[in-house]
Amino acid sequence: MKPILKSKLVPLLAFGAHPDDIEFGCGGVIANETHAGRAAHFVICSRGEAGTHGTPRQRTEEAKKSAALLGATIEFIELDGDAHLEARVAHAIKLAAIIRRVRPGILLAPSLVENQHPDHAKLGRIVRDATRLARYGGLKELRKSPPQAIDQLFYYAVTTEAEPRDISPVLIDISAPEIVDVWTSAMAAHSSQVRARNYIELQLARARLNGLRAGIDHAIALFPNDPLVLESLFQTNRSTRKF
Amino acid sequence: MKPILKSKLVPLLAFGAHPDDIEFGCGGVIANETHAGRAAHFVICSRGEAGTHGTPRQRTEEAKKSAALLGATIEFIELDGDAHLEARVAHAIKLAAIIRRVRPGILLAPSLVENQHPDHAKLGRIVRDATRLARYGGLKELRKSPPQAIDQLFYYAVTTEAEPRDISPVLIDISAPEIVDVWTSAMAAHSSQVRARNYIELQLARARLNGLRAGIDHAIALFPNDPLVLESLFQTNRSTRKF
Amino acid sequence: MKPILKSKLVPLLAFGAHPDDIEFGCGGVIANETHAGRAAHFVICSRGEAGTHGTPRQRTEEAKKSAALLGATIEFIELDGDAHLEARVAHAIKLAAIIRRVRPGILLAPSLVENQHPDHAKLGRIVRDATRLARYGGLKELRKSPPQAIDQLFYYAVTTEAEPRDISPVLIDISAPEIVDVWTSAMAAHSSQVRARNYIELQLARARLNGLRAGIDHAIALFPNDPLVLESLFQTNRSTRKF
Amino acid sequence: MKPILKSKLVPLLAFGAHPDDIEFGCGGVIANETHAGRAAHFVICSRGEAGTHGTPRQRTEEAKKSAALLGATIEFIELDGDAHLEARVAHAIKLAAIIRRVRPGILLAPSLVENQHPDHAKLGRIVRDATRLARYGGLKELRKSPPQAIDQLFYYAVTTEAEPRDISPVLIDISAPEIVDVWTSAMAAHSSQVRARNYIELQLARARLNGLRAGIDHAIALFPNDPLVLESLFQTNRSTRKF
Amino acid sequence: MKPILKSKLVPLLAFGAHPDDIEFGCGGVIANETHAGRAAHFVICSRGEAGTHGTPRQRTEEAKKSAALLGATIEFIELDGDAHLEARVAHAIKLAAIIRRVRPGILLAPSLVENQHPDHAKLGRIVRDATRLARYGGLKELRKSPPQAIDQLFYYAVTTEAEPRDISPVLIDISAPEIVDVWTSAMAAHSSQVRARNYIELQLARARLNGLRAGIDHAIALFPNDPLVLESLFQTNRSTRKF
Amino acid sequence: MKPILKSKLVPLLAFGAHPDDIEFGCGGVIANETHAGRAAHFVICSRGEAGTHGTPRQRTEEAKKSAALLGATIEFIELDGDAHLEARVAHAIKLAAIIRRVRPGILLAPSLVENQHPDHAKLGRIVRDATRLARYGGLKELRKSPPQAIDQLFYYAVTTEAEPRDISPVLIDISAPEIVDVWTSAMAAHSSQVRARNYIELQLARARLNGLRAGIDHAIALFPNDPLVLESLFQTNRSTRKF
Repeated sequence: MKPILKSKLVPLLAFGAHPDDIEFGCGGVIANETHAGRAAHFVICSRGEAGTHGTPRQRTEEAKKSAALLGATIEFIELDGDAHLEARVAHAIKLAAIIRRVRPGILLAPSLVENQHPDHAKLGRIVRDATRLARYGGLKELRKSPPQAIDQLFYYAVTTEAEPRDISPVLIDISAPEIVDVWTSAMAAHSSQVRARNYIELQLARARLNGLRAGIDHAIALFPNDPLVLESLFQTNRSTRKF
Repeated sequence: MKPILKSKLVPLLAFGAHPDDIEFGCGGVIANETHAGRAAHFVICSRGEAGTHGTPRQRTEEAKKSAALLGATIEFIELDGDAHLEARVAHAIKLAAIIRRVRPGILLAPSLVENQHPDHAKLGRIVRDATRLARYGGLKELRKSPPQAIDQLFYYAVTTEAEPRDISPVLIDISAPEIVDVWTSAMAAHSSQVRARNYIELQLARARLNGLRAGIDHAIALFPNDPLVLESLFQTNRSTRKF
Repeated sequence: MKPILKSKLVPLLAFGAHPDDIEFGCGGVIANETHAGRAAHFVICSRGEAGTHGTPRQRTEEAKKSAALLGATIEFIELDGDAHLEARVAHAIKLAAIIRRVRPGILLAPSLVENQHPDHAKLGRIVRDATRLARYGGLKELRKSPPQAIDQLFYYAVTTEAEPRDISPVLIDISAPEIVDVWTSAMAAHSSQVRARNYIELQLARARLNGLRAGIDHAIALFPNDPLVLESLFQTNRSTRKF
Repeated sequence: MKPILKSKLVPLLAFGAHPDDIEFGCGGVIANETHAGRAAHFVICSRGEAGTHGTPRQRTEEAKKSAALLGATIEFIELDGDAHLEARVAHAIKLAAIIRRVRPGILLAPSLVENQHPDHAKLGRIVRDATRLARYGGLKELRKSPPQAIDQLFYYAVTTEAEPRDISPVLIDISAPEIVDVWTSAMAAHSSQVRARNYIELQLARARLNGLRAGIDHAIALFPNDPLVLESLFQTNRSTRKF
Repeated sequence: MKPILKSKLVPLLAFGAHPDDIEFGCGGVIANETHAGRAAHFVICSRGEAGTHGTPRQRTEEAKKSAALLGATIEFIELDGDAHLEARVAHAIKLAAIIRRVRPGILLAPSLVENQHPDHAKLGRIVRDATRLARYGGLKELRKSPPQAIDQLFYYAVTTEAEPRDISPVLIDISAPEIVDVWTSAMAAHSSQVRARNYIELQLARARLNGLRAGIDHAIALFPNDPLVLESLFQTNRSTRKF
Repeated sequence: MKPILKSKLVPLLAFGAHPDDIEFGCGGVIANETHAGRAAHFVICSRGEAGTHGTPRQRTEEAKKSAALLGATIEFIELDGDAHLEARVAHAIKLAAIIRRVRPGILLAPSLVENQHPDHAKLGRIVRDATRLARYGGLKELRKSPPQAIDQLFYYAVTTEAEPRDISPVLIDISAPEIVDVWTSAMAAHSSQVRARNYIELQLARARLNGLRAGIDHAIALFPNDPLVLESLFQTNRSTRKF
């Protein structure tokens, strides 16, 4: 774990409960950012050892290959293990330490909707709390690294069911063909998973549908934890107004 | 009604049910945009003739003076009269014709929350529908002008009660002192109104509170009708994360 | 307008604001029911004369052809005209008279979500009210026909944006290949529309995505106006639990 | 704990935090299903030892008697004890093991609404997560039994306050007099509880009110965790449309 | 229509779309207030002429008898007729004139939930807007009477379905036996209606259920249009905390 | 910790996660009640040791000084420590014991909204559950003190973000100048905190804004956990109806 930053830009930090969650939930967004020269770093919180398909070793390899395809660095951490995650403060402190080390501007985490794989919503909550703990100056476990305030936390949804109903989404345009191609390859790199179920088709159908809503080719919906602050109304001048 | 555009930028179009609604609801946002060189045009749908204070003539003059202070052009139209507005299709077609004439990128309209002055929510609905009618090619009343698709419709809230609870707000940073000054002058120009009630204090308190949420001086919350579409996560890298 | 019923089953009655709304919003559901031998009848409330593409005559022909492909009968009625619909009581009484004549068990209408083509939400509200007026015995305009209480009103959504967020959907399984084929042909029959925009792809992507949620090929989400009443928990023993 | 199944039908599995929760929350539904010949099994997660009335021994006896009246088998398990339940993953794994053993089609659990007895919402969340864990092939604690995917999870509400506001209910018709009688007897069997408070009247009033909504004698509202999937619109042709 | 006020207290003003709506929706609350010596006045906006049972003449007589039992004065006004009500501004102005004449502190109106008899939600909206128009000083139709600001507008729900889900209810304790008796008599006075359907049982079941929630005999839920303002936390020291 | 009660009135009990939460979230309400002669007692669940500013010793002193200014007694308890709080049942039992000892009528706790300092929402949930445990007669840890049922639990919000969106607020009028003065002094007593950030301005702006909504000077919004039960509609005859 040495040099994470590949550019001078403030990096993007994405958390996944399992080796493939980031790719299926928002891999196209990652590809879009790294393609534009920004650094991205993945933190994976289990080896997927409770899943029906793939061994921990296979899944680790798949995740590394996939992150490389997306141009992201990757690390694995131990919390409670796959399907055993609890929303403990100790975990939030651990993630806060990573935030202080990586010093990202933007974070990505699984959504808080509870009706999905239990680890997803719990990790989302742990990350949300970690972004606050990373800011508090008196936390003795984190004394060695200076506090870090991030700019924004976005949630991704691995399935339609996991999309929050109480936050207005923002859609990220990932229409450039090379982005969709890289994303598809990154998903396909999780071969133990995609062999068994049609995850790739699910995600591309979701992205295509979001693209049709916006009159573009493909888009991924993300859900900001806090209201966006804009310099001007003209800072974002596109919306979903096609049908 | 000749030259509306003061610059080559796609103009901003704001609708108000009464002569002072735009100023009280989002005048700081207008000042912020015209200060940056963008054109803004106001369409006022009554002379405030049912209000407790001020004559129609006074209120028209106040609105003109206020628009000039904000750097906006202004026109008055007749719908059903103050406190008499109905959400008729004929009105939406009338506003759609204005949209086709002005050809704005961004629209501002009062929010759809019904628990406020009845004209506000109705005008919001008329504007929302007008943005669609402006796009439909076969509408015979609008045959003379080519269809126009806007980029985004934002709602403003004249009071706290009028803030929608089902749309995540975006906050527009209006912290530059000259912006707040111009906005305050524009509100004060409605002297028949501000003499009777503490509207200016209300709006500045709201803007200060939004500013405190975002760690800046002042901000105004707007509510996008449709999800924003971004090129990149880094297109908007600020959020309300201060407390 | 003679014999509507093709079988002894209580018929299905579907309302559309424009000649293609039923097909795009829930055509697969119609095909599924007529394929099972149930009668379906369409009531179309405009000729699409305000749309960008197609003449009223063309669109009428397209709708007739499409209804025939789906095995449904069809009639056109005049309300206020395309893009001019108002939610008048007189219209609800007119539709209530149709309900009393057709005597359906189940109704389909566009959803009440207002952020879509203005005619859609208004027609949905008119139909909802009409189902009540059809039941009231003292309505003098309807004196000639006996009151009729329907069993259920389902809303369909022509776009993702039009899906209600405050009603839990039910998914109708339309996975049989012949159903999807017939539905696709029926949408394609609206050739003036599908030439200009990728409506068919939009609807098939939505249906495929719903199918993936449920572990089946294709499904269409409908939104019941009133809680379902079941004889037993085992009456419906399938749900979306695949991802 | 030997032969649970009394018929060839896929059994119904109901979880209760306390000895009387299933009966008060949805006993009429149980009676309705067992009366139709389906097997039902209860899992009770405490002896009610923190309650104001009744000893653990009494309450165990009451629950056994009540289950017998309803035609259900019953077992007691130890989690954290009455009023001490925590939503631990270890508990979800324990319940997942029961799901794999009983292999039910339909599950009943207390609702997730937090403003009720704390054990209820926590048990609801544990059961919801357990239904997912029961499906995951790699969970080493459950290695001995094959994965099991259920058809549907319904929540019951022990009080009006516990009814979810974000899920559309389905109403189960329990109007047959023998069903209401059996249910009433089953509630009365919890004599230590009903002596102190008017629980029976509360539940019958709720069921009668739901019946009146649907134009029938009595009904119980349940809340599906996931959207229902139907073969046809005509699969459920009744709704609450009486007033 | 001469002396409405029977006491020096600021009167209560209740609006009903049909001759029996106030009684079924909140008659117990009326009885509770008049019993305490407060004046109540009813404004009925149709003769129920579209209903299945009862002639306009019968229903007028029933309403008069029922109001007398409740200790309220009553007047009938003409809007659009039963089942024909539209939410017109002209109606709101008409009701605002009544508000200025009666000068009430508290208003009661049917809830805004649209999935009920169409006249109910429309009347609720008309009343809500009328309370604002009654305050505006420049409205020329109302020039003769001085503006009147009410203290609070409460909505009542004629059925369970009509209870708003986005407003927290307040429960009014109507447990005194004489109150329930008077209320029951007032409902029974609508003999043309109660002969045909079990309305009285419906309302008493709802009130009993609300009473059980609060640990009292009977209560009626009302829904305040605007947040309550209290002098002290101890001004209302009871809540629903019994189960 | 001897004589808590200063009057014969049932006391008010307020819980804070950190030494300054009660003051910033609802200090004006406390001042308002003690000014009227009611007893108030604070329970503080950490020494703020994870905060950026102030030592635990300083913060303890500040809290004591502030409570004294507000006329409240204060005690500190140990749960998991600042920024380490978990929503454990053991904590709820500990707080239930305090409730049984203090025997309050009204409780104040931080809101349940999760997007704030993690300790706040967790403490809110612990208090909510504690109010139920305090009532259960069989809880062996609490055997020594008789059960206690409170009248109402109100939530306070330390920031705008922490205001619940699913509960209608009640506004407490704190307009008397001496109340605002005392409150301001009590906030200022937390000098380690207010030196670093503009908390006092934030809270006064919020209270002023709520005051403007209600046409009074200052008000604080609280959120009742359970519906209020009123003797009469006239028990609370004020609402926010000024703009």
